[in-house]
Amino acid sequence: MQLFYTPDIDPTLSQYFLSEEESKHAVRVLRLNVGDAVTLIDGKGGLYKAEIKDAHPKRTILQINSVTQQFNKRNHYLHIAIAPTKNLDRVEWFLEKATEIGIDEITLIICQRSERKEAKAERLNKIITSAIKQSIKAYHPVLNAPVNLAQFIKQPFDGQKFIAHCDEGEKASLAQSILKQNRYLILIGPEGDFTPAEVDAALQSGYKAITLGESRLRTETAALEACFEVNFLNR
Amino acid sequence: MQLFYTPDIDPTLSQYFLSEEESKHAVRVLRLNVGDAVTLIDGKGGLYKAEIKDAHPKRTILQINSVTQQFNKRNHYLHIAIAPTKNLDRVEWFLEKATEIGIDEITLIICQRSERKEAKAERLNKIITSAIKQSIKAYHPVLNAPVNLAQFIKQPFDGQKFIAHCDEGEKASLAQSILKQNRYLILIGPEGDFTPAEVDAALQSGYKAITLGESRLRTETAALEACFEVNFLNR
Repeated sequence: MQLFYTPDIDPTLSQYFLSEEESKHAVRVLRLNVGDAVTLIDGKGGLYKAEIKDAHPKRTILQINSVTQQFNKRNHYLHIAIAPTKNLDRVEWFLEKATEIGIDEITLIICQRSERKEAKAERLNKIITSAIKQSIKAYHPVLNAPVNLAQFIKQPFDGQKFIAHCDEGEKASLAQSILKQNRYLILIGPEGDFTPAEVDAALQSGYKAITLGESRLRTETAALEACFEVNFLNR
Repeated sequence: MQLFYTPDIDPTLSQYFLSEEESKHAVRVLRLNVGDAVTLIDGKGGLYKAEIKDAHPKRTILQINSVTQQFNKRNHYLHIAIAPTKNLDRVEWFLEKATEIGIDEITLIICQRSERKEAKAERLNKIITSAIKQSIKAYHPVLNAPVNLAQFIKQPFDGQKFIAHCDEGEKASLAQSILKQNRYLILIGPEGDFTPAEVDAALQSGYKAITLGESRLRTETAALEACFEVNFLNR
């Protein structure tokens, strides 16, 4: 299946022009011809079946044959706020894998023990886009700009809020905590974990402490474990 | 915690000599001194608490203070047989993450659609060793040499055998299929999946077809999903 990500498409259109870059890719790399079937995803739940009307290397014209809205819409909403890892590769693979498994929103949070304070959104978004194409997802997860944890936990969120940390104290599992088909926001700390003061501040702001099992997990593995558990528990 | 992987240690010993490489690392890099506490893992379930008696840069002497056998032994046995990915990075990260989450044995299987037919065991084992140290696991997962799928599925296995594939046909989930606290062997195919003939051969050999959910997952993500599910279902 040849799949293109076309965020500017509109369900009322009967024709669509691929961008210059995508046209070149379609005609020169994929060698698509008139009549070939292609699939478009808009990142907002729309999946379009189309065929090539004019295989122009700069301005390929597609005829839209059908539109499916809310394609494979998941029955819950998952927002993971993760401290970017020192080695950004680790966040990159988390984004790829979480997109494959199922996630809606990601925020990079800067914590007291964060060694990395920034990350280039453009590159990270490219990884997400590539993963939605690879796994045929019609929803494009939203990546928010990095924000300080202290500021982030004050933002309102309509749903269940959790903080996964490794310190002692009363913690429940996600299986014990989540209401099904709900909205979830989960905080994942940096290498070295959240400070006790950060955990306290999150608890004060209505976050509930959770454990992700007995294993000591790296930041990105913990985030993926949370993503896996939420999707699994909502099957 | 300073942790060393010492597969040749023996629970009857009261003293242990670190290898030349580990001695150098302990004394020159970690700058450990007489009296400093260290932890040793033998990869077979033994976790040793020790202290430095002589911080020699080539032949550091440790005094063993206590031994725990079957440290954090898991309540099940998981063997995943995975086709190595074209880009070996992807198998490498699977090994790292699966070790963190919990796995006992990995076999690389060569399938009809495998583009990659080999992988250097030494490098892959180093990744596993590094992951057990990072996540404080006393058991070192075993990595078997690559083997052809046709040959592999004829080997006996005392436990439940599954094949995860994407073709049509009757498939159950792991949640519906596994007996808890059991031994499991799960086959994960290459990019492009198993061929129908390979699936048939596995079914003939007593493997049961399973699905890992609705998402289209990459080879290494599917293998990690299987690892997540087995560990989660055995909590």
